[in-house]
Amino acid sequence: MPPPPDALATRLAAARNGTRTAELDALLVTNPVNLRYLTGVAASAGMALVTADGVVVVADQRYLRQFEEAAGDLVQVVVAAVPVGQSYEHTIAAVVGSRQVRTLGIEADHLTVARLAGLRREAALAGCELCETSGFIERFRAIKDPWELSRLREAGGRLAEVAACILPEVSEGRTEREVSWKVELALHGAGFERPAFETIVASGPNGARPHHRATDRRIAAGELVVVDFGGVLDGYAVDMTRTVAVGRVPAGQRVWLGAVAEAQQAAIDAAAPGVLPSVIDGAARAALARHGLAEAFVHGTGHGLGLDVHERPMIGPRGDHDGPIAPGMVFTVEPGVYVAGQGGVRIEDDVVVTTSGVERLTGAPSDAEAHEL
Amino acid sequence: MPPPPDALATRLAAARNGTRTAELDALLVTNPVNLRYLTGVAASAGMALVTADGVVVVADQRYLRQFEEAAGDLVQVVVAAVPVGQSYEHTIAAVVGSRQVRTLGIEADHLTVARLAGLRREAALAGCELCETSGFIERFRAIKDPWELSRLREAGGRLAEVAACILPEVSEGRTEREVSWKVELALHGAGFERPAFETIVASGPNGARPHHRATDRRIAAGELVVVDFGGVLDGYAVDMTRTVAVGRVPAGQRVWLGAVAEAQQAAIDAAAPGVLPSVIDGAARAALARHGLAEAFVHGTGHGLGLDVHERPMIGPRGDHDGPIAPGMVFTVEPGVYVAGQGGVRIEDDVVVTTSGVERLTGAPSDAEAHEL
Repeated sequence: MPPPPDALATRLAAARNGTRTAELDALLVTNPVNLRYLTGVAASAGMALVTADGVVVVADQRYLRQFEEAAGDLVQVVVAAVPVGQSYEHTIAAVVGSRQVRTLGIEADHLTVARLAGLRREAALAGCELCETSGFIERFRAIKDPWELSRLREAGGRLAEVAACILPEVSEGRTEREVSWKVELALHGAGFERPAFETIVASGPNGARPHHRATDRRIAAGELVVVDFGGVLDGYAVDMTRTVAVGRVPAGQRVWLGAVAEAQQAAIDAAAPGVLPSVIDGAARAALARHGLAEAFVHGTGHGLGLDVHERPMIGPRGDHDGPIAPGMVFTVEPGVYVAGQGGVRIEDDVVVTTSGVERLTGAPSDAEAHEL
Repeated sequence: MPPPPDALATRLAAARNGTRTAELDALLVTNPVNLRYLTGVAASAGMALVTADGVVVVADQRYLRQFEEAAGDLVQVVVAAVPVGQSYEHTIAAVVGSRQVRTLGIEADHLTVARLAGLRREAALAGCELCETSGFIERFRAIKDPWELSRLREAGGRLAEVAACILPEVSEGRTEREVSWKVELALHGAGFERPAFETIVASGPNGARPHHRATDRRIAAGELVVVDFGGVLDGYAVDMTRTVAVGRVPAGQRVWLGAVAEAQQAAIDAAAPGVLPSVIDGAARAALARHGLAEAFVHGTGHGLGLDVHERPMIGPRGDHDGPIAPGMVFTVEPGVYVAGQGGVRIEDDVVVTTSGVERLTGAPSDAEAHEL
């Protein structure tokens, strides 16, 4: 299901107005995810030139028709082809050269040093100042529109069902890889387009690695197993982690489970419009510190979700550069504890910021507790 | 299965010698795939500083243990942690600052403009010249070592089996998405870690889009269906396309099938050590031109395969900047024909360059013909 044309029109208008506010004659969009946000077309290549007057998408033959079809519904967008044998840089330069563009914003977090050098070599850009921008379109993306929220709510609900269906499969004798495949089958069964990332199944001591990859290791009784999985629905990613205690785990490790659940709830309770990400992160960190586990929490508390599985806002100790959280933002809340040689715990749910607090997208806390505790 | 330590030692030595040849005091590796090539560790973050004396890997807590374990087997590698709350740029600058590095190569095709600016802001790099490099490690990667070839041969054989198993499933009434899921099940059954990319199933007029995404469109009798799929085994990608004629297709479209098969064979026949990529591409293009289909072939003839599903060498009209093909290179041969409103054909196999020509990795031509013709 593609985004409705009126949603795209609103995004395009915001981007166009944004160039004016930033005092740029144009913005060159080179991040394919930003291009998808503006056009609805998922492509691994393509660029867009956004000006106050309209948007020119430049694409090669692989994706040209998809962009042309999308532009048919959008009065603000025209499409230009990269001629066979020509470069994107040259084609963009020709488009820019035909307009009154003196200041051209580039996406510094995405454009490579080599592509920038390629643009600088184009004679048609000689009189044009290239200005580094950061998070230009990404900041618009951070606030989800109603259609995006409907997709993320639907996806969150389905992911909670996937969790309910696969967690009983995490059992003694199964390999990590077998569980990870069960997750992928369940994601497909729930109608997700694809997994949002490589499913993490980390059993016993492997749980000490936050980004472990599933192996042929067999799950044993008395172990904790971290299962971190996500799915993509209509382009939007949701992400969830549960930690399963298989049989009787050592008492010390059971303490981790309770502490992490408490940290997650503390972070969720702290989250509301106007609150800085570092405050939400700090709430989770303080809860773990009360259990003497501050050092064991080695990553940030969460990350935004949308067309990317990691996007703004970043919920961490250094996540305040974009300001406080705001209604319409969607992010994960996923504190964890990692102890080398022993194992780990992570509990992750997705939330949307409302006008007064946050709403869980991936099931009620009672669901989470039923699996972990 | 990770690469054997002796293969990694050879790669590391080549990279270290390469910095000396390029008259660099050090090379900063920031492309995660290059980092995997050098260390065997697949991680979404991490950097390496390669000097003539050894390699320092810098990693954050998410991947630190994986890199430390890998470094245990490699005398040339030490690992340094990014302190919590610090940036990669700052940590790398500290490592560089503690060594006699006056010229530091960066990977211009991968490093972003923002990261380069971040490095430039580090005081410890003030006396250090940052030199743009292109394809430094990628050129080593283009020539596969014996272990890599064994993996790619195994993967190619398994992918041919997947093709044999799923092509009979391409039938009237099935949706594109159903076929794409059958492909993913077959890839899993064949032992692939994951699909190498989103499986393309393009039926009828959708075949005119080289990079179509599978939809809920139902396949009808009399249509061509392009199925392009790949799998990853031990990190290495293989890639294959077959075009299935469902029932009796129009005579004009049957001509495309024969012409594309002929073009593929012409390209394979033209490929041998010392031959330029543009010559191989030209052979495919000339064969299609003989059928009046030159304009309908809108992309290059092939791309290298390895840890990336698209890597060097690029086999196209503009692919000669790296010189002729050489023994140990692995690439796809995939001419196609695309006609808007009607459909398309693509046939793709993977080959490895031998001392005298090329060897097919994805089955004998007779297999291909049995499916297409």
